[in-house]
Amino acid sequence: MENQKIPYKIYLNEDEMPKNWYNVRADMKVKPAPLVNPGTLQPMTAADLAPVFCDELIAQELDNDTREVPIPDEIRGFYKMYRPSPLVRAYCLEEKLKTPAHIYYKFEGNNTSGSHKLNSAIAQAYYAKKQGLKGVTTETGAGQWGTALSMACAYLDLDCKVYMVKVSYEQKPFRREVMRTYGASVTPSPSMETNVGRKILAEHPGTTGSLGCAISEAVEVATSNPGYRYVLGSVLNQVLLHQSVIGLETKIALDKYGIVPDIIIGCAGGGSNLGGLIAPFMGEKLRGERDYRIIAVEPASCPSFTRGKFAYDFCDTGMICPLAKMYTLGAGFIPSPNHAGGLRFHGMSPVLSQLYHDGYMEAVSAEQTAVFEAAEFFARTEGILPAPESSHAIKAAIDEANKCRETGEAKNIVFGLTGTGYFDLVAYEQFNNGTMTDHIPTDEELAVGLNALPPQPTF
Amino acid sequence: MENQKIPYKIYLNEDEMPKNWYNVRADMKVKPAPLVNPGTLQPMTAADLAPVFCDELIAQELDNDTREVPIPDEIRGFYKMYRPSPLVRAYCLEEKLKTPAHIYYKFEGNNTSGSHKLNSAIAQAYYAKKQGLKGVTTETGAGQWGTALSMACAYLDLDCKVYMVKVSYEQKPFRREVMRTYGASVTPSPSMETNVGRKILAEHPGTTGSLGCAISEAVEVATSNPGYRYVLGSVLNQVLLHQSVIGLETKIALDKYGIVPDIIIGCAGGGSNLGGLIAPFMGEKLRGERDYRIIAVEPASCPSFTRGKFAYDFCDTGMICPLAKMYTLGAGFIPSPNHAGGLRFHGMSPVLSQLYHDGYMEAVSAEQTAVFEAAEFFARTEGILPAPESSHAIKAAIDEANKCRETGEAKNIVFGLTGTGYFDLVAYEQFNNGTMTDHIPTDEELAVGLNALPPQPTF
Repeated sequence: MENQKIPYKIYLNEDEMPKNWYNVRADMKVKPAPLVNPGTLQPMTAADLAPVFCDELIAQELDNDTREVPIPDEIRGFYKMYRPSPLVRAYCLEEKLKTPAHIYYKFEGNNTSGSHKLNSAIAQAYYAKKQGLKGVTTETGAGQWGTALSMACAYLDLDCKVYMVKVSYEQKPFRREVMRTYGASVTPSPSMETNVGRKILAEHPGTTGSLGCAISEAVEVATSNPGYRYVLGSVLNQVLLHQSVIGLETKIALDKYGIVPDIIIGCAGGGSNLGGLIAPFMGEKLRGERDYRIIAVEPASCPSFTRGKFAYDFCDTGMICPLAKMYTLGAGFIPSPNHAGGLRFHGMSPVLSQLYHDGYMEAVSAEQTAVFEAAEFFARTEGILPAPESSHAIKAAIDEANKCRETGEAKNIVFGLTGTGYFDLVAYEQFNNGTMTDHIPTDEELAVGLNALPPQPTF
Repeated sequence: MENQKIPYKIYLNEDEMPKNWYNVRADMKVKPAPLVNPGTLQPMTAADLAPVFCDELIAQELDNDTREVPIPDEIRGFYKMYRPSPLVRAYCLEEKLKTPAHIYYKFEGNNTSGSHKLNSAIAQAYYAKKQGLKGVTTETGAGQWGTALSMACAYLDLDCKVYMVKVSYEQKPFRREVMRTYGASVTPSPSMETNVGRKILAEHPGTTGSLGCAISEAVEVATSNPGYRYVLGSVLNQVLLHQSVIGLETKIALDKYGIVPDIIIGCAGGGSNLGGLIAPFMGEKLRGERDYRIIAVEPASCPSFTRGKFAYDFCDTGMICPLAKMYTLGAGFIPSPNHAGGLRFHGMSPVLSQLYHDGYMEAVSAEQTAVFEAAEFFARTEGILPAPESSHAIKAAIDEANKCRETGEAKNIVFGLTGTGYFDLVAYEQFNNGTMTDHIPTDEELAVGLNALPPQPTF
């Protein structure tokens, strides 16, 4: 494998790193539907959102028009600590698969948060600091987002309160300790610290919590403590904006070597990675400059794109957040215990939902054991132990590469390797022991959430 | 921090990566003393070593003369999957310390084994495969070496049997699962699978094992199963040879920007990282071309350089291995429970021991809580959660940078950041909870090991 023209890893120089984020909404003919007040069913204004979010982030959230948003110097400085992330040519994987396809992956796991989440965490913490706030609150499930936010807040000397889904708090004590090492306070959710937490515990004693419940607690704490705001690691338009740095770096790296992807693949939970990875490519597609196959991969246990409805729904189970129009399984949907924690959200980014609805991308679902088979194969071949979430994209990339072996096509396949699985070893242990199971919800199980959507706006 | 001439991270291009390992022994006027047969007290020959080690590795072990050893193409291919590792300019750390010093670290943690150990693991696995062997055996304590070897063996389709110190096997189930994911068999040591294991269990029922015991089991399995050999991740001359890739890359990166280090710092357990990092710089020093301050940092709880004796000793507590001349606390020395697992070895690389004895390097020791304070500070500032072992070097680098603040000198400080602490969160939890303790052995405690050295050769 010596003397390949394309290196194993393409790194950008600092002066090649993106200076602007790219806002894909500017190129969408049909804009994503606005967030809506669940009481009035009218679009949320900046003033409505101000008690919850930082001012500059609200402006980014509502701005469907500005195409290029300058990345502040301070954020670019932080990015340089752990970016650019490598675009890796998967020579070893190609060889093992005996495929004529050329496989590339953008690896976002080489930082202590273990995922791409840091790209938006530092941006959100920066704007909170700039606004003179004391701190931020958030929720975390699998823990990547909470870790990323803790790191960003430690760097900027900002207080950080994390509400961690109780089951993860107990099953992932190491994630918790990483956040504490970075100075964050970590509270298992539901807790007795909030009204919503107390209410949920009274109604469901012994519950192990959910992401939706933790969101409700974090929002309550932010809005009831002066100098605090709430921040969120996925779903929101602003998050996709920040995460566009993934796709922009990917595109610059590919362009350096004249590589044009045929297929772009990303795992999809709330959409932060997928939306970031595909942003500039989707922009070209929206502007009619170039066509790409874009594939979202979601867990069969939580199939919002492939089996959900495109409708307004709550983002949280406490139903205190605005409504978002998205592919959703219903805020009442409870996915089966599934270790791909970051993909267990019942909804999906409104931007990606609109793009999927309008036919700009495809979606597939994958079962957990098949995903872990792909993860193990990848680890042994490419030397990186992938996160379960990321492994959904690996599975789909391998499937596409195998199709190329059959057809003899040398397609360029690019996928997002969002993170590492160092804190997911309980799931790997189940896989190694052969005790891992899959659960695909029945239509009846899905009907519970889908039939309980809130009243829909009529504007 | 924009527009710095020197980037945050210096990466080499593939064609700049080293094509040869550097054998520092070739430039040593006084060569390291040979391994000695504990029965005859005569130097071990290649034939003596053949039942235990692979042939080509024995040749490397005994070769004190060849300066440049070509890195086989297959190993260079594997290196390209996770190397070059970045040489990072610690701009953020410098700013927080308000030091005029320029601080650089060579970060070896961005691979799934989480440390530099992979550099030698792939080399040793490669030579085993080339010899037509079926597999290799080894021991592991903290788990970095076992993980690295598992990855290398998975890549080369070689069987890998790891004997893991029982206390670590139980306390670090996640490390164990990483190794299993890479297809290795992991056995808690002492086990009932070997004569030596059964003997130890009969004599000490309920023992939680030791590195020395695990070595004895791994060697027994290698020598009693056709097609197997034993491999070791530190101490040996061959390991330092492979690890020279760290220092070579560091030197090439520094040379690109015309940076000449004043001080080079590495943590020291068995010496694999330190020996690799300093190799080419030590070569210049030995040849009289340039002078550098070179500092080894060891735990105060296991101070082989600073309080040990330079003498022949066993490498294992089971006393079945050859004798090596090194700084040692005695094979009978049992360090207090200390989470910097990789630095708990009672001895030290014979190469480094000779160089230290001859005045080519300094050594300091650091206490555990001070090391974790440095680790936390570094994590919050540079965004990387360091391994406890690596944090010894961080502590010394910060101390030197603080001295520069006082004197106003803009020294260039380079240190080795050998790995990440993602599997050391039990120790971080103790630190976060304020329950971490230090132990500096008394002179009486050290006397136990130091007064029980084996008979010394007289040749």
